[in-house]
Amino acid sequence: MNEEEYMQIALELALKGIGKVNPNPLVGAVIVRNDEIIGSGYHERYGELHAERNALKNCKVSPSGGTMYVTLEPCCHYGKTPPCIDAIIESGIKKVVIGILDPNEKMAGRSVKILQEAGIEVVVGILEKECGDINEIFFHYIKNKTPYVLMKYAMTLDGKITTISGESKWITNKKSRENVHKTRNRYMAIMVGVGTVLEDNPELTCRLNNGRNPIRIICDSKLRTPIHSKVVSTAKSTKTIIATTVTNEETYKQYLVKGVEIIVTKNKDGRVDLNELMQILGEKGIDSILLEGGGSLNFSALDSEIVNKIHCYISLKIFGGENAKSPIMGDGFNKVNNKIQLKTNTFLTFDEDILIESEVSYVHRDN
Amino acid sequence: MNEEEYMQIALELALKGIGKVNPNPLVGAVIVRNDEIIGSGYHERYGELHAERNALKNCKVSPSGGTMYVTLEPCCHYGKTPPCIDAIIESGIKKVVIGILDPNEKMAGRSVKILQEAGIEVVVGILEKECGDINEIFFHYIKNKTPYVLMKYAMTLDGKITTISGESKWITNKKSRENVHKTRNRYMAIMVGVGTVLEDNPELTCRLNNGRNPIRIICDSKLRTPIHSKVVSTAKSTKTIIATTVTNEETYKQYLVKGVEIIVTKNKDGRVDLNELMQILGEKGIDSILLEGGGSLNFSALDSEIVNKIHCYISLKIFGGENAKSPIMGDGFNKVNNKIQLKTNTFLTFDEDILIESEVSYVHRDN
Repeated sequence: MNEEEYMQIALELALKGIGKVNPNPLVGAVIVRNDEIIGSGYHERYGELHAERNALKNCKVSPSGGTMYVTLEPCCHYGKTPPCIDAIIESGIKKVVIGILDPNEKMAGRSVKILQEAGIEVVVGILEKECGDINEIFFHYIKNKTPYVLMKYAMTLDGKITTISGESKWITNKKSRENVHKTRNRYMAIMVGVGTVLEDNPELTCRLNNGRNPIRIICDSKLRTPIHSKVVSTAKSTKTIIATTVTNEETYKQYLVKGVEIIVTKNKDGRVDLNELMQILGEKGIDSILLEGGGSLNFSALDSEIVNKIHCYISLKIFGGENAKSPIMGDGFNKVNNKIQLKTNTFLTFDEDILIESEVSYVHRDN
Repeated sequence: MNEEEYMQIALELALKGIGKVNPNPLVGAVIVRNDEIIGSGYHERYGELHAERNALKNCKVSPSGGTMYVTLEPCCHYGKTPPCIDAIIESGIKKVVIGILDPNEKMAGRSVKILQEAGIEVVVGILEKECGDINEIFFHYIKNKTPYVLMKYAMTLDGKITTISGESKWITNKKSRENVHKTRNRYMAIMVGVGTVLEDNPELTCRLNNGRNPIRIICDSKLRTPIHSKVVSTAKSTKTIIATTVTNEETYKQYLVKGVEIIVTKNKDGRVDLNELMQILGEKGIDSILLEGGGSLNFSALDSEIVNKIHCYISLKIFGGENAKSPIMGDGFNKVNNKIQLKTNTFLTFDEDILIESEVSYVHRDN
């Protein structure tokens, strides 16, 4: 096998950590000697061993003289666990092949240098794009210190998220909805507007076997979330945050006793200041948010430029209706040139449903 | 080459007639002797020779003893030209391979029988689906005697056809718009609502080299089309029909002198009765309509169940806006089960734009 093939195996191992390692990156490692894989591992759970140490631990023969393939530059600092490069140097590994460097500019290449000074050959950049893509959340979070935000919505082929009477169950098919639950499992938090809580009283949990429930964030500028709503009454078992502009702390008490956390932001045009909220959530270690808002919150999120990616599910139905709701509402952008431009796209189909994935670009906005 | 391969060549020849043969079908034919193509042809222009006669005419050696591959069952009746089966029998052809039978139930298989009675071997059903698909318009028109209607619209990824200020130029890119012009060339007529004429004053022509301008149909219940609009002032060079519910013939005169044709239908909830209009247009020999309506006409067309297929172009932009226009408006369908379900779909991409093609199914409507 060649370098790409070994790195591909490390990549596939890395993905096994989805949903369990945030805000750490997904990392996989393979150790090879005489063209044979003698050990492999991945970062399995936040706070536990990194991929490199797991791979070394799993070696069936001594790794001394072998080559390690690892998707991300090994760490050289103490975090929850000691530096991986110490373990690599001690093991007698003679070559390290790295997918992509540490996204933290101050750290990038530092471990490479230390390994080289220890006499180890280092190669960087094998399947670099793929190794970066699996950690788009981590790379964004390290660079910006705010959560990576994925906006998800499901609409008909005529751009409606409900019928004129407000029905929305279900626009997409079962396979699409299962994929949404996989996404929920990958993101650390899920965010909705209070309108969604008032209309649907959702649980916002992950319904996958062994899935992890995301932290629930409700944008609720006027603190209208019902005290008996599902999100509030289950706040002790699944973390729930209400973001508001209400400053009267007396009104918080009823939520606090239920286990809800309150975050107060500045009032921005009568709404929660989403940029400030992202700063606060980032400081709390929340690296990723799945935004399942209605049209009003979705517009505010795009207008505040906090959205990184869109997942648009399209169902081959037509609802029609001048007053049926659409995925992005609010004030809108009034000129064709003052729009949000989406950059790249991939398509997935779930039977007759379509999922369009697009990265959001704010660079061409003409305000 | 085998039968499928020869039929594939005939299919490709048939497509050369696009835009020139309506309301006749697209047909291609290939004549083979000793594994060599000795003649081929297609139906080139309405009123001129059929594919079979063109293929016979183009034979470089005598077709006697050869095999003819033809995408559609040859005709056995006098139309604008004499029956093709007469020419086939006279030519000495000993075998005819047919893609698909005549869609007219009374005719289907009749020519096969006559050919067999003349001692010619006949095979039917080679690339049958493909031979039917190229003539979906013809098959629909023969069966229903009303035009095949394709609804086309272009929207952003959040389901908007204009910004909140009404801008729509351009949602899609140049390649997508060129493809729309190719579609216009294939359809015999183009239909819009008077709202589109009032807002955009379009020409509704085909901008392809050697393209054929479609007949223009304006749905205008109250006869508000401006007399100086482009569609009216060019009505003498490109046929223009206004469909209205106004019965006062005095008001027609100004349009008639400009060369516009007026069609009056019953008043259906204040609008043109689209079902009646389709009957009338079918009787006039119009086999196909490209519907480029606004949200209101599009809704009426779906609610009247006249739409056969949808071409939805999606551009990777976000316009937002509660009051921005969407492709299907009107009253809407108020329950998830009372929606329009789309049947099959194919995707095409034009750089970053997406075209979703769907057939419309009305069978599951729950009114």
